[in-house]
Amino acid sequence: MPAAAAPIEAIVAQALAEDLGPGDISSELTIPTALQAKGSFLAKQTGVLSGLDVCQECFAQLDPNCHFTALAREGDRFTSGATIATVQASARALLAAERTALNFLQRLCGTATLTRAFVDAVHGTGARIVDTRKTTPGLRLLQKRAVRAGGGYNHRFALYDGILLKDNHIALGGGIARTIAAARDGRPHMLKVEIEVSDLQQLQEALAAGADIIMLDNMTPEQLAEAVNMIAGRVPAEASGNVRLDTVARIAETGVDYISVGALTHSAPAIDISFDIQPT
Amino acid sequence: MPAAAAPIEAIVAQALAEDLGPGDISSELTIPTALQAKGSFLAKQTGVLSGLDVCQECFAQLDPNCHFTALAREGDRFTSGATIATVQASARALLAAERTALNFLQRLCGTATLTRAFVDAVHGTGARIVDTRKTTPGLRLLQKRAVRAGGGYNHRFALYDGILLKDNHIALGGGIARTIAAARDGRPHMLKVEIEVSDLQQLQEALAAGADIIMLDNMTPEQLAEAVNMIAGRVPAEASGNVRLDTVARIAETGVDYISVGALTHSAPAIDISFDIQPT
Amino acid sequence: MPAAAAPIEAIVAQALAEDLGPGDISSELTIPTALQAKGSFLAKQTGVLSGLDVCQECFAQLDPNCHFTALAREGDRFTSGATIATVQASARALLAAERTALNFLQRLCGTATLTRAFVDAVHGTGARIVDTRKTTPGLRLLQKRAVRAGGGYNHRFALYDGILLKDNHIALGGGIARTIAAARDGRPHMLKVEIEVSDLQQLQEALAAGADIIMLDNMTPEQLAEAVNMIAGRVPAEASGNVRLDTVARIAETGVDYISVGALTHSAPAIDISFDIQPT
Amino acid sequence: MPAAAAPIEAIVAQALAEDLGPGDISSELTIPTALQAKGSFLAKQTGVLSGLDVCQECFAQLDPNCHFTALAREGDRFTSGATIATVQASARALLAAERTALNFLQRLCGTATLTRAFVDAVHGTGARIVDTRKTTPGLRLLQKRAVRAGGGYNHRFALYDGILLKDNHIALGGGIARTIAAARDGRPHMLKVEIEVSDLQQLQEALAAGADIIMLDNMTPEQLAEAVNMIAGRVPAEASGNVRLDTVARIAETGVDYISVGALTHSAPAIDISFDIQPT
Amino acid sequence: MPAAAAPIEAIVAQALAEDLGPGDISSELTIPTALQAKGSFLAKQTGVLSGLDVCQECFAQLDPNCHFTALAREGDRFTSGATIATVQASARALLAAERTALNFLQRLCGTATLTRAFVDAVHGTGARIVDTRKTTPGLRLLQKRAVRAGGGYNHRFALYDGILLKDNHIALGGGIARTIAAARDGRPHMLKVEIEVSDLQQLQEALAAGADIIMLDNMTPEQLAEAVNMIAGRVPAEASGNVRLDTVARIAETGVDYISVGALTHSAPAIDISFDIQPT
Amino acid sequence: MPAAAAPIEAIVAQALAEDLGPGDISSELTIPTALQAKGSFLAKQTGVLSGLDVCQECFAQLDPNCHFTALAREGDRFTSGATIATVQASARALLAAERTALNFLQRLCGTATLTRAFVDAVHGTGARIVDTRKTTPGLRLLQKRAVRAGGGYNHRFALYDGILLKDNHIALGGGIARTIAAARDGRPHMLKVEIEVSDLQQLQEALAAGADIIMLDNMTPEQLAEAVNMIAGRVPAEASGNVRLDTVARIAETGVDYISVGALTHSAPAIDISFDIQPT
Repeated sequence: MPAAAAPIEAIVAQALAEDLGPGDISSELTIPTALQAKGSFLAKQTGVLSGLDVCQECFAQLDPNCHFTALAREGDRFTSGATIATVQASARALLAAERTALNFLQRLCGTATLTRAFVDAVHGTGARIVDTRKTTPGLRLLQKRAVRAGGGYNHRFALYDGILLKDNHIALGGGIARTIAAARDGRPHMLKVEIEVSDLQQLQEALAAGADIIMLDNMTPEQLAEAVNMIAGRVPAEASGNVRLDTVARIAETGVDYISVGALTHSAPAIDISFDIQPT
Repeated sequence: MPAAAAPIEAIVAQALAEDLGPGDISSELTIPTALQAKGSFLAKQTGVLSGLDVCQECFAQLDPNCHFTALAREGDRFTSGATIATVQASARALLAAERTALNFLQRLCGTATLTRAFVDAVHGTGARIVDTRKTTPGLRLLQKRAVRAGGGYNHRFALYDGILLKDNHIALGGGIARTIAAARDGRPHMLKVEIEVSDLQQLQEALAAGADIIMLDNMTPEQLAEAVNMIAGRVPAEASGNVRLDTVARIAETGVDYISVGALTHSAPAIDISFDIQPT
Repeated sequence: MPAAAAPIEAIVAQALAEDLGPGDISSELTIPTALQAKGSFLAKQTGVLSGLDVCQECFAQLDPNCHFTALAREGDRFTSGATIATVQASARALLAAERTALNFLQRLCGTATLTRAFVDAVHGTGARIVDTRKTTPGLRLLQKRAVRAGGGYNHRFALYDGILLKDNHIALGGGIARTIAAARDGRPHMLKVEIEVSDLQQLQEALAAGADIIMLDNMTPEQLAEAVNMIAGRVPAEASGNVRLDTVARIAETGVDYISVGALTHSAPAIDISFDIQPT
Repeated sequence: MPAAAAPIEAIVAQALAEDLGPGDISSELTIPTALQAKGSFLAKQTGVLSGLDVCQECFAQLDPNCHFTALAREGDRFTSGATIATVQASARALLAAERTALNFLQRLCGTATLTRAFVDAVHGTGARIVDTRKTTPGLRLLQKRAVRAGGGYNHRFALYDGILLKDNHIALGGGIARTIAAARDGRPHMLKVEIEVSDLQQLQEALAAGADIIMLDNMTPEQLAEAVNMIAGRVPAEASGNVRLDTVARIAETGVDYISVGALTHSAPAIDISFDIQPT
Repeated sequence: MPAAAAPIEAIVAQALAEDLGPGDISSELTIPTALQAKGSFLAKQTGVLSGLDVCQECFAQLDPNCHFTALAREGDRFTSGATIATVQASARALLAAERTALNFLQRLCGTATLTRAFVDAVHGTGARIVDTRKTTPGLRLLQKRAVRAGGGYNHRFALYDGILLKDNHIALGGGIARTIAAARDGRPHMLKVEIEVSDLQQLQEALAAGADIIMLDNMTPEQLAEAVNMIAGRVPAEASGNVRLDTVARIAETGVDYISVGALTHSAPAIDISFDIQPT
Repeated sequence: MPAAAAPIEAIVAQALAEDLGPGDISSELTIPTALQAKGSFLAKQTGVLSGLDVCQECFAQLDPNCHFTALAREGDRFTSGATIATVQASARALLAAERTALNFLQRLCGTATLTRAFVDAVHGTGARIVDTRKTTPGLRLLQKRAVRAGGGYNHRFALYDGILLKDNHIALGGGIARTIAAARDGRPHMLKVEIEVSDLQQLQEALAAGADIIMLDNMTPEQLAEAVNMIAGRVPAEASGNVRLDTVARIAETGVDYISVGALTHSAPAIDISFDIQPT
């Protein structure tokens, strides 16, 4: 998407500045300025791809004449041993951008891969896997994209594009009915009002007050099933709280529409990918 | 350290902007402007603390009149159930800063806690646990600090404050002897020259060429012991490559001086910490 | 709202830099550094107040010791001759900030005042006046706030916090049914799908496809009434297109829920407010 | 002018960021990434053109491969129905940039058009129409350019490139003679000293003290004529204060050299221009 | 001057970032965090003071609780051995800010001191010493202030606040008469038109064309005297080009009004000032 | 080096903004927009080249279509009368960039030329000339590069890439032994520990405590010789303090390994280079 290009450029520029500062002293001392080389990204384990354009941007910012060849696309699965991309550039640029590019790629593939695992686990149910705001500061845009690459869906991006009334809003705002009423009354009319409930009585109240979406927080599968039953299709239901790969299928089978998983962005293990360089 | 204050402020400002943009619509609709409240950071598992000042900065940027009380210090161990800090502020500021503060704190405590585990595992040997450049883009400063909080030591911060000649420098720069000579000749004289070797013949060459530090890459404990023996205390030795919690003690016992662990910053699981809010 | 503080500071800093650059040469040459003075904002016509905190920020950035006293609040009506606020500060700071403060205040009161006129014109109907994205580049946050000060409501803030399918989306996206289906399928679940229609057949199609909100574009009051009738309360209806003060009541009486008015932010005349300075 | 390119790029980048943030969700959901389209700017009323390069920059930043064809030049008059420019680009980029481009273009053409009306109204007299610092925060550079496009002239750009002593400077600086003396003594020698006077006695004093330019503030045409008579061509005279289209000719006929008009930048109505998109 | 505060803060922040980056490693390793100390700026040679507020800002940014005591004011002369200022702060802040503060202070005092020497050398003549645009990139604001501290006057600040037609403008713009006419016709009316001439014939032409100021470029004292004679007080005359301390008096005696000296900002030797620290 | 490209672009952008602000008014008024011209950099004295790429960037930022031809390379010696580079561009861009380009080039060649003089003066000894942190705020990167162009070597770049314990660290940190121990214990292992000593007793202590490098501060050649003798090749020795061109050879002959010279960056006279423009 063109509109997303600018942020990626800025994120990459900042990351390169962090690692390069006044210069890559090892390469400056040992590698001839004019030397060209070729690097390859090699998968060392299976995974789902996300963020290859971010890698490309890393090299392009240091060598505008580099040639980057993507061998897979956003969302593709790759297997151990696969070459994901190659890049021809000045050897100094390759060495200077390598670590930053890998730092992005390994993390983003990590999120895409973990998301895919959750999505696969709920296959056949109607539930969608969605992300949360538990993202790494500065990288939310890229992590949310990685979730989509893995087959997941995005929840609100931030505090400004969704209304979600949590326990604290309810406690500080005067209870469920009053809080929902205030939100419904003042909201931009294109936003739905979602509210978090933790038991069936709260759910009842929330439905009566006109909530557009219900978040069922930290409920057991049994409670979720009961809640779904009570909602009876009037509004979408979202399950939330400590969802794990070994429990997500059971949760999905309760009939909830969405399952939000913080681990997609806060605990996805990095995927092992290496970068090999040869002279050309 | 005063000098580090500015970067932290900037990192926090950027993170808050990412989450707040034009505003926290849920709170604006439901929470009175003047309402004050009190929040508490509660540990849900044991861990090592790092980054509480980053949390404080999150609240201070949204409510300059907030009162933040730290109940533990950088590097302290905490147990499940412990209250780590409290903060009094406008309720809207608490709700707006909560997620960003937790996103920092859970990750940084994760790195400090994992570092402490590695450090404890090599207790009694002379080996030090050091970090790498495998950090999250934008958060290196904070992650390196978290490593120190966990009892680890920092490797070079970035490409500009250390000379480390890796396999690619050697391949592209004309071999071990020539690469070391070039680096020794041109370097700022306050920097040592470290070189990565993967077998004993390379080690021999590197020692002969005058390397200041040897990185022993991806060697078995047996190879490491042999290498340490060959080095014979002339220069420090660093073990590197796929170091895990269950192998690090064995590596340390080979007599290496440093063990660098990428996992400290790329794969530390987030620590579960919650933030509870009550009206005041 | 605390979270909005940071953007206002940045907008003001940029505006002051634009006017001050290397310095206010007239004052530097003629006004003693230590001289204190007092300025007063005087209304020269009736209006509705918005943006006084932006004015305060202008002075505070140039003289952190200034005393600013607001005599009216956001959204208050003021009459010609009223003193809106006073500020004590160094005379140089008053003179340097005066024009920038007025440039903000006159425009923002202009939007608040015009909004109030539209809101008053539809009093007694159920229709709400909402704004658009036809804002001045760089000032959207402040203009949207001014709309609220005038009793209006905000539409989506930008392209990222609302789904609005216009004629171009329909034409390029394959028709109404297909476009709505794509939007419903992929959207973050907290966003509604609004679609713009220009006749009753399109409306029929949009309702059948499951649109959450209907924008009735450039219709006559008669057409609007017919459309409202057809919608029959199933989803909210928004009237849009060339709404004027002398036509808005007639539009509201058709029963639409929202009336969006571009003029609130692109054509509100500035309110005449002066700033008088006396020595203290 | 090449030197002006950088600021325009920055202004546009900021405006696009304001509207796009993390992305244009409507288009991302409904428009294929690869789809190309063509947009046309159509005038819906007569006017004077200014700011087409700003529009071009909006599209270029989102799609570097776009083709923008200007069909009129800065300062040209256009009539209702005229096509002002066309642009070929990715459909997503067209939709994402459309509103921002129009927000600039409609306002800048508004200023150019209003300026042209004032300039035409004083045609045949020797008076020049000049702007003021009553500009929209952040857009001064573009608005001042629009004034020139309409046949007007620029007053000082800001507080740093002109010395203008107003009533407050005189009051706080110790009177007319002393204030002018201070300004003449300390000024960079390339700047003239202009002083604002409100009656003939002040004028007398200002001339005696060596003012380089006289601003005649809020005078009736009769007073202006008398003042021009008293100045007798020794220095330029500028009329200022509540100048309207229906009074400006009468003011110009008094023989003043310059007439400054705040309305050019604070109250010019936006020109109605639409942007139509067709698939290609 | 309040308006200048913001730029100084930004210049200092950038300079500190350049020197501190991720931290002052020497102090962090050896100086206790809580240790307080006191530093003194000591003059090692005589000079004229400029930029002490910049030094203060350096310390204040690293330790907001520091106490800075200025013992001399902008423009004061100091002698070798004098204590110029003292500062109490955390020892780490003192050590971290020391070099940056001295880098500013020594250079700015250098410019003030050299300016004072030129000003003293023309004492008794009517000539004023003015600066040029031959400043250090990024430091123009501070250097121009230092010129004033030394008793000099500022020429235009930059390309935007003065019209100076040089040989290249004349050559590319169609000759003296045409160039002056174009400048007079289009300029903002508060700016004078200065033109550079290199012989008497050009001078004649420039006067006839209505130049407001004449720059006499690279002329001998004899030529300057003849030129001054020809100008006969109608407009100010400025001598320019390779002015040295040992030639400036002779130039001033020719009767020129201004003498511009590039050396003030491009070749002023740094003043030797030390910073001594004691524990408190 | 590709990695250094980004900072240079930013430094140049800032410098151009400082000089151009809202525009180059002289050229805008007198030079046709479309006029092309050619400029030449001419040496007016002999020197050593540094920073020509910075000049090129100045022109490229104002006219992306400019053709810049370098006629000498970084580090080359040039003689008076030599043409160093030519540039074809729009006449307005040439005039707008000229002063900024020269402000960089003259200063950087000044540093390179002075460095070369020092390097030549110690030719035949084993001593290397190194720079200091006494650089111009904002220009350190460029000045350090100029030192290398002149045949010198760089000391640490800033406070973060070298450990240098000075008198204040020793005084505040508890003496030589304790300070060295603390630094050795906590440092990143790729950094050496250098310590400043001012007499032989301190030297003794420093050697005993395990310093990696000794800085001999403000010693006479006789003291230096004695110190070198005492060090006996165990660690490198650096002479520091008031080194002048007429004393540096004598210092080098004492056998020190490094001589640091603050004057390279704080007192190098600007090299006289002119920029001549002809129409094309």
